[in-house]
Amino acid sequence: MAGGLVLLAAVTLLSAIQQCHFVWLVGQSRRKHKVMPPAVTGAPEFERTFRAQQNCTEFYPLFLSTLWIAGSFFNQELAALLGLLYVYARYKYFYGYVASAKGRLAGFHLNLVALIFLVILGAAGIVNSFLDEYLDFSIRKKLHKLF
Amino acid sequence: MAGGLVLLAAVTLLSAIQQCHFVWLVGQSRRKHKVMPPAVTGAPEFERTFRAQQNCTEFYPLFLSTLWIAGSFFNQELAALLGLLYVYARYKYFYGYVASAKGRLAGFHLNLVALIFLVILGAAGIVNSFLDEYLDFSIRKKLHKLF
Amino acid sequence: MAGGLVLLAAVTLLSAIQQCHFVWLVGQSRRKHKVMPPAVTGAPEFERTFRAQQNCTEFYPLFLSTLWIAGSFFNQELAALLGLLYVYARYKYFYGYVASAKGRLAGFHLNLVALIFLVILGAAGIVNSFLDEYLDFSIRKKLHKLF
Repeated sequence: MAGGLVLLAAVTLLSAIQQCHFVWLVGQSRRKHKVMPPAVTGAPEFERTFRAQQNCTEFYPLFLSTLWIAGSFFNQELAALLGLLYVYARYKYFYGYVASAKGRLAGFHLNLVALIFLVILGAAGIVNSFLDEYLDFSIRKKLHKLF
Repeated sequence: MAGGLVLLAAVTLLSAIQQCHFVWLVGQSRRKHKVMPPAVTGAPEFERTFRAQQNCTEFYPLFLSTLWIAGSFFNQELAALLGLLYVYARYKYFYGYVASAKGRLAGFHLNLVALIFLVILGAAGIVNSFLDEYLDFSIRKKLHKLF
Repeated sequence: MAGGLVLLAAVTLLSAIQQCHFVWLVGQSRRKHKVMPPAVTGAPEFERTFRAQQNCTEFYPLFLSTLWIAGSFFNQELAALLGLLYVYARYKYFYGYVASAKGRLAGFHLNLVALIFLVILGAAGIVNSFLDEYLDFSIRKKLHKLF
């Protein structure tokens, strides 16, 4: 039944594997810098690695919900592409942050760009869906007629 | 295809924007109190702001999953209303917590009320759906016949 | 409309209640060890309890997304069973971690097993769905014909 949204599912699974990878890298950093659980403070590199993963975790549900809303209500292909951009930006962010606190910024800004576009697409899709459902007026259908 | 659940999507997008806003307020508080990443300790007001955002983040997936289950399996309009109540309670919670540790309580309790009702609606919807699917017995249809 | 995925919804609701329970146990531990918010450091038992809940929170969106992808694209019953295994493993993990840092390991490894299987099922379902949609080739249908 969910076959129609397979691109969103593929991007979601990819991002979930990436998140698991980040958790694993924190574990590696714990061993390297001898920071045993439950401690979360220690060598600066460990603290940056930990915060990088924490930040990815904080944003993850926001990413997933905007990805699926943009993909279901606006356009699946476009949302999936933005999702791939987000995954790439998280990669840049994580490794940048591990290297230095300043190194996180380039990836972070790219993340925000992807997220903001997903929010905009999602909002456009929701507005269109509202008009369609409650006022029987569909922008997309009008555009389809024009072109 | 997801057009039928547009109210849930709208509440979800609203709550995602709110979460982004909270993350941004933590960033502002970092600058105000000169707490540079990856540090998460410093001025008490910063620590309260940070914990407020962390708590919102912890509850966010719980909120989303109960919202969509209550909305899909019980009633979309009711779930969306409880979702709006939750977003309002998070607003109260966040600004209350930034002001003082005690200030978080009123919003927090309202959050719990919204969440508990979403869980109850979701559970009722699931039980009904189970009965309908596996025992061919639908409480909702019986109620519809009565009224 | 979501009636077909009621088992996934039931496991999701169960796991959401479990997460709420963990948050509540952290609150209890705060009171027991007199660690007042926003502090997150104090007695070792409190710190372990807090980290246990944090880890559950970090993994929760990963669990939900892989559960629903595996359940929608591969097989709902199998995914729901793995979901129940995950919930049980989190229970073992949490209480193990509260008792001692080493006590978390058995539950954690079981968690990973459940998660890895969900990822594999999800990936298999997505690949099958891709082949079906874009190449009109369905492994599942071929298997159905064979048996």
